[in-house]
Amino acid sequence: MRILILNGVNLNLLGKREQSIYGNTSFEAYLSKLKNRYRTIQIDYIQSNDESVLVHHIQEADTTYNGIVLNAGAFTHTSIAICDAIRSICIPVIEIHISNIFAREIYRRKSCLSEVCKGSICGLGLDGYRLAIESFIPLV
Amino acid sequence: MRILILNGVNLNLLGKREQSIYGNTSFEAYLSKLKNRYRTIQIDYIQSNDESVLVHHIQEADTTYNGIVLNAGAFTHTSIAICDAIRSICIPVIEIHISNIFAREIYRRKSCLSEVCKGSICGLGLDGYRLAIESFIPLV
Amino acid sequence: MRILILNGVNLNLLGKREQSIYGNTSFEAYLSKLKNRYRTIQIDYIQSNDESVLVHHIQEADTTYNGIVLNAGAFTHTSIAICDAIRSICIPVIEIHISNIFAREIYRRKSCLSEVCKGSICGLGLDGYRLAIESFIPLV
Amino acid sequence: MRILILNGVNLNLLGKREQSIYGNTSFEAYLSKLKNRYRTIQIDYIQSNDESVLVHHIQEADTTYNGIVLNAGAFTHTSIAICDAIRSICIPVIEIHISNIFAREIYRRKSCLSEVCKGSICGLGLDGYRLAIESFIPLV
Amino acid sequence: MRILILNGVNLNLLGKREQSIYGNTSFEAYLSKLKNRYRTIQIDYIQSNDESVLVHHIQEADTTYNGIVLNAGAFTHTSIAICDAIRSICIPVIEIHISNIFAREIYRRKSCLSEVCKGSICGLGLDGYRLAIESFIPLV
Amino acid sequence: MRILILNGVNLNLLGKREQSIYGNTSFEAYLSKLKNRYRTIQIDYIQSNDESVLVHHIQEADTTYNGIVLNAGAFTHTSIAICDAIRSICIPVIEIHISNIFAREIYRRKSCLSEVCKGSICGLGLDGYRLAIESFIPLV
Amino acid sequence: MRILILNGVNLNLLGKREQSIYGNTSFEAYLSKLKNRYRTIQIDYIQSNDESVLVHHIQEADTTYNGIVLNAGAFTHTSIAICDAIRSICIPVIEIHISNIFAREIYRRKSCLSEVCKGSICGLGLDGYRLAIESFIPLV
Amino acid sequence: MRILILNGVNLNLLGKREQSIYGNTSFEAYLSKLKNRYRTIQIDYIQSNDESVLVHHIQEADTTYNGIVLNAGAFTHTSIAICDAIRSICIPVIEIHISNIFAREIYRRKSCLSEVCKGSICGLGLDGYRLAIESFIPLV
Amino acid sequence: MRILILNGVNLNLLGKREQSIYGNTSFEAYLSKLKNRYRTIQIDYIQSNDESVLVHHIQEADTTYNGIVLNAGAFTHTSIAICDAIRSICIPVIEIHISNIFAREIYRRKSCLSEVCKGSICGLGLDGYRLAIESFIPLV
Amino acid sequence: MRILILNGVNLNLLGKREQSIYGNTSFEAYLSKLKNRYRTIQIDYIQSNDESVLVHHIQEADTTYNGIVLNAGAFTHTSIAICDAIRSICIPVIEIHISNIFAREIYRRKSCLSEVCKGSICGLGLDGYRLAIESFIPLV
Amino acid sequence: MRILILNGVNLNLLGKREQSIYGNTSFEAYLSKLKNRYRTIQIDYIQSNDESVLVHHIQEADTTYNGIVLNAGAFTHTSIAICDAIRSICIPVIEIHISNIFAREIYRRKSCLSEVCKGSICGLGLDGYRLAIESFIPLV
Amino acid sequence: MRILILNGVNLNLLGKREQSIYGNTSFEAYLSKLKNRYRTIQIDYIQSNDESVLVHHIQEADTTYNGIVLNAGAFTHTSIAICDAIRSICIPVIEIHISNIFAREIYRRKSCLSEVCKGSICGLGLDGYRLAIESFIPLV
Repeated sequence: MRILILNGVNLNLLGKREQSIYGNTSFEAYLSKLKNRYRTIQIDYIQSNDESVLVHHIQEADTTYNGIVLNAGAFTHTSIAICDAIRSICIPVIEIHISNIFAREIYRRKSCLSEVCKGSICGLGLDGYRLAIESFIPLV
Repeated sequence: MRILILNGVNLNLLGKREQSIYGNTSFEAYLSKLKNRYRTIQIDYIQSNDESVLVHHIQEADTTYNGIVLNAGAFTHTSIAICDAIRSICIPVIEIHISNIFAREIYRRKSCLSEVCKGSICGLGLDGYRLAIESFIPLV
Repeated sequence: MRILILNGVNLNLLGKREQSIYGNTSFEAYLSKLKNRYRTIQIDYIQSNDESVLVHHIQEADTTYNGIVLNAGAFTHTSIAICDAIRSICIPVIEIHISNIFAREIYRRKSCLSEVCKGSICGLGLDGYRLAIESFIPLV
Repeated sequence: MRILILNGVNLNLLGKREQSIYGNTSFEAYLSKLKNRYRTIQIDYIQSNDESVLVHHIQEADTTYNGIVLNAGAFTHTSIAICDAIRSICIPVIEIHISNIFAREIYRRKSCLSEVCKGSICGLGLDGYRLAIESFIPLV
Repeated sequence: MRILILNGVNLNLLGKREQSIYGNTSFEAYLSKLKNRYRTIQIDYIQSNDESVLVHHIQEADTTYNGIVLNAGAFTHTSIAICDAIRSICIPVIEIHISNIFAREIYRRKSCLSEVCKGSICGLGLDGYRLAIESFIPLV
Repeated sequence: MRILILNGVNLNLLGKREQSIYGNTSFEAYLSKLKNRYRTIQIDYIQSNDESVLVHHIQEADTTYNGIVLNAGAFTHTSIAICDAIRSICIPVIEIHISNIFAREIYRRKSCLSEVCKGSICGLGLDGYRLAIESFIPLV
Repeated sequence: MRILILNGVNLNLLGKREQSIYGNTSFEAYLSKLKNRYRTIQIDYIQSNDESVLVHHIQEADTTYNGIVLNAGAFTHTSIAICDAIRSICIPVIEIHISNIFAREIYRRKSCLSEVCKGSICGLGLDGYRLAIESFIPLV
Repeated sequence: MRILILNGVNLNLLGKREQSIYGNTSFEAYLSKLKNRYRTIQIDYIQSNDESVLVHHIQEADTTYNGIVLNAGAFTHTSIAICDAIRSICIPVIEIHISNIFAREIYRRKSCLSEVCKGSICGLGLDGYRLAIESFIPLV
Repeated sequence: MRILILNGVNLNLLGKREQSIYGNTSFEAYLSKLKNRYRTIQIDYIQSNDESVLVHHIQEADTTYNGIVLNAGAFTHTSIAICDAIRSICIPVIEIHISNIFAREIYRRKSCLSEVCKGSICGLGLDGYRLAIESFIPLV
Repeated sequence: MRILILNGVNLNLLGKREQSIYGNTSFEAYLSKLKNRYRTIQIDYIQSNDESVLVHHIQEADTTYNGIVLNAGAFTHTSIAICDAIRSICIPVIEIHISNIFAREIYRRKSCLSEVCKGSICGLGLDGYRLAIESFIPLV
Repeated sequence: MRILILNGVNLNLLGKREQSIYGNTSFEAYLSKLKNRYRTIQIDYIQSNDESVLVHHIQEADTTYNGIVLNAGAFTHTSIAICDAIRSICIPVIEIHISNIFAREIYRRKSCLSEVCKGSICGLGLDGYRLAIESFIPLV
Repeated sequence: MRILILNGVNLNLLGKREQSIYGNTSFEAYLSKLKNRYRTIQIDYIQSNDESVLVHHIQEADTTYNGIVLNAGAFTHTSIAICDAIRSICIPVIEIHISNIFAREIYRRKSCLSEVCKGSICGLGLDGYRLAIESFIPLV
């Protein structure tokens, strides 16, 4: 199983800035713990501040991955382009927000992406990424 | 660790009706698999169609449980009473929706509860309950 | 044929209060005339001020009745819970309003239930109940 | 007793087009069954695609009929002119919609006429016309 | 000087219906007093319930009259067609409302025509027509 | 007969500024022509940029004048205080706007005063004042 | 004189939770001081988290009490059912809010009940209840 | 192949009025050039200021024409009646606007018809009609 | 203890006009009863129709009074200036409305001042002033 | 004559994905047919998922091309940047949408670009591009 | 060169109240530093809590000053009267806000004045006044 | 002291296009005058049409510059990504608009960035950049 974690704009700053909201762990540190936990899953990670790069990787992921775990950052609230890219592929996309976007500014409470994602996990910190991956493993 | 799963109005019908949206597994069957998986956690389950009963159990859970996994059903979209009950307690509440509420009717896209819950998991089917419980176990 | 008439909140006061809007006939008096007129139909009647009780009776009616004649009172304008209960059953529900809700306060002009009911009858007084029952008898 | 049934724009196509919404019975066929059922009532029928013709017949009906059964078609949602015509007469007007307008497009959910009609019957198919006529006969 | 008074939908009922709002003088009686008062002005009068007839007379008036005094009735609030007809001619149009539309229903407070008329006179009863004609006579 | 003409904020600049909108006649020059035309009517004139002064004169006018001709200027769109003052007196107030406020900025299209005035005259230039006075003289 | 104090949902927690907003006095302690102060008035007290129970007590109070002092808690903002119950009785209801609801979340600034209550007292802490009772004693 | 060009209200004035917006060519002159260009297609042309006449011709065209090229004029923005007529037929309707309605008044930017037409061509002058006809000829 | 009662625009008319809404007692008569009742409190009274005068007295009261009882009249709904003046002082301000503003015109239901006042009393007639003063005396 | 066809985000997938909406022809295949048809016109084609690249090509096209045929994809609904780029050039831009955006999701019905384009063609499939090019050839 | 600094309502409190927002420098102290810096410019200063006084000084400044630096305080958000006064003069007005109004309450984010001022400077503290004056000195 | 001037999308065209709005000076020419005036400040300048490039430079500036002078162009109105980048750094950002955005199209009046910038300067032409730099030099 291959999962692509895709992080959007300003998420290169995770662990460095606004630590009261996003915590002080860098994503790279978290990612290595995650890979350790799910050794049978190939977890790839891409971050970009560029909307068109995110669109490109979503388009490309379709034939290569079993699913995408997507935190689009601020593009969540504005990008119909990413929304359309998700709509054009067949693998499930799970939307992640580290903070609880429903308890923040009004303009952060509306996601352009939720409607076309399979589901969303919000407010559970970096652990949201783990839960998203966990969701690909059926409970037996 | 003790977790309370609280299901709201019409969720007694899970597995019986509107199976295209909610699936055909009854919650009881799912719950027994869940308990099997997380044996070290005491998982209690209450369902009620009555808003005041839900308010009561949220108030009472504060000193007894480590957290609540809450799927308030239709009350999600209308109940400031449940919102206030959550606000009045100290343990974390995680909001669950089986279907992707952001891909459904307009009035289902707004939750009165998200703002006061710790986080929310939406659209991942019954597995949302499992992920919510999983979120109480720190990744090491 | 069995029809369930379900009256919601404050409708226990019919005939006693706000007579300029709702008339001065008690529902019990009207009901006995109705049963007299439609002797071949079993007409059951339940009134409750409790939203969860209404939800319960709608859920239960599904296998027992041919249809429901529902006047949810003020819940008409606020209850997604009742809306979901109607959505979960297969028998037709006909929505009744004694007064013309479209000629009253703004917040009374919007029904949460109309969308999931088969149809609605509004503004024709207590006779709305009779017409709803009449609608179950095909014109030949 | 004389009742005028007034059908508005595009209702000349009843039974011919969009049968999944409006059924496949022509209004003429239905009307003859209706007249047969209510032999003591004189039922007249007029259809027009022209708003001013409908206004004219509503104005004229005032001294000639005991009531009007009105399905204004699309004018329902736009015509303050018809609304004013109804307001200017003394006999009751009952608004009919064959389909459930509250389960259709947003712009079909708002009626300009409901406020000035005595009542409305919606979503019960052609039978709505029969129920409207039935409402003129008091229950004893 | 030639002035065209153009009355729209339902205004054929002036003096007959809703007398508490519109008074009990028929327009014909008022018109004869008006013609008597302004003998040097040729005052023509047309009433129609048909929007297309009003559009036609506005188009035609352009080369024949010095101005139009227009009470479009309910079309005031809905007709972009009449608005465009006014926009297409060069002579001034003065909008009249017998009652104070700003003290009535919300939907009567918005005129589609005001923006393209030279001016409007509202709430001054039938005398609004006189004042509109008076406005064509410069004060010296 | 005594009529009070009350002009509000910035109307002291009439004839001096924004002549493309308001013309180049000073109100004083116009007023003297007006008094000349209506010699049997005592026409008093007050202008103030101060909302409280306008409120005072409206309150005081009640027992002294037969009516008020009011152009409140920008206060038209914001002053509930003036609205309440008008509501508290018994003599009719006629609202005047020199320009066609419905063809200008959005915020100028809404008057707080129209609802409580007897009527309004708009877009007919300084002649609006004359027509307002004319309206106090019945047509015989 | 008999006054019914009716407290709604979550108000059983008064003095225990969210003390920065609602203070640390339990309602029972406050009530005993209140009864002590107004010995000639019979003050009864009921609290319920159940909307239908509140509806019931409002209906019943009509013939038994001189007035109701009502703090409906979160139902204030959502319950047309309670609004209708108040509308159906003849004794005055005074609406109380302990905190200043106009300085809190947007959804708390709108009350469904104010329109049908005699008056409201808001933001004055538990003393709001005392002032409401005081209002039943005329100033001489 | 037979195509019906249907022009709505005020379009009889094309080439005569508001030439800065609509140009100075009469539709008749343009039509003859159009027929000359597409000799193998039978192009019929109807213009009416009457909404009901347009509804009639749309209904009738269904069995006679391969498609309709429709410029409904101001009815574009208000007529659900024409919208319903289009919905009731099976041949494609292409919506034309001579001017760019999205660069004009707010109320001209919303079309009631676009949703039910096959497509729309806007802002390309009279040539919009030609392009619409061109669209019926497949590119090979 | 010193309390300032501050009445705003048009409240000089209390007891004289609109008696059905505001009663027929002049404020002066009421004030003398009030002073009689609360002899140990120095109650000063100022009324002004001028927003800037109210701003001035609120600014000045800060070091002189223990609190302000404010009925700003129509300024309640429009004055951010008064709102800011209240925000700039340290003593509590209690907002009074004689009538129930929530049962009146839409624009009267929104107060610009509530958010910055300590609390508000509404709909309890002139007695609102007494209750506001009463609120300064702690219950023991 | 030189025309630039500019396709925006996700349009590289044309013919491959969401074929029920966009058809199964790749743009390259269509383009070669187009070039074949209009041999005397130099047709250049650029596609990019990057908003800044589109802005760049619009800026550059100004001195090189006679016009631009632009399908901005999802940027249509969000990009004021592209809107400003169009505003800054002198050659005409024609907006294309393959599907009928007015019959799709609400957020697709609003274009940020229409206002500054010369015109738009919508819902006519890939043929929209042909018609746009056709519009550059005057009808003689 | 003569510049008028005009400060509006509550700005007499600068440096005394709400120091966390507005700082602790009185405007007089700041003004003397400003005059010292710009010795060749005559800087006059007026503050008033009275909207009509501000209107008066704006009207009068037209022929006397080269420009106005205006901080209207709360009137910024409500006064069309001041807006009209600015519109009536020919010298440039520069709008100043000491705090960043876009980071404060919703109702402070909208200025009635920006549209008619030459420009605005916001959020830069008292230095905003200096920058406004600086803007009158061209960069060479 | 080091200041970064950051110009966004389409601002590479300054001085070349839409000169009636933005003037005819190129930014490079202006910049050299600016550097000449403030010789002790190191002023760096970057322009990009690419949102992600702007985000990058804002992130990087944090440790290198004393402040940013930002004119984001059209991104001002749409980019939460840039807003978040500003939020993530500690140095002050001053927002510049050359034209008065409050006197232009509705969608240009709302800035996504103002809320997180220290302040904004708008409508003062290229001089806005100079004033922003000036604001970094304290008045002594």
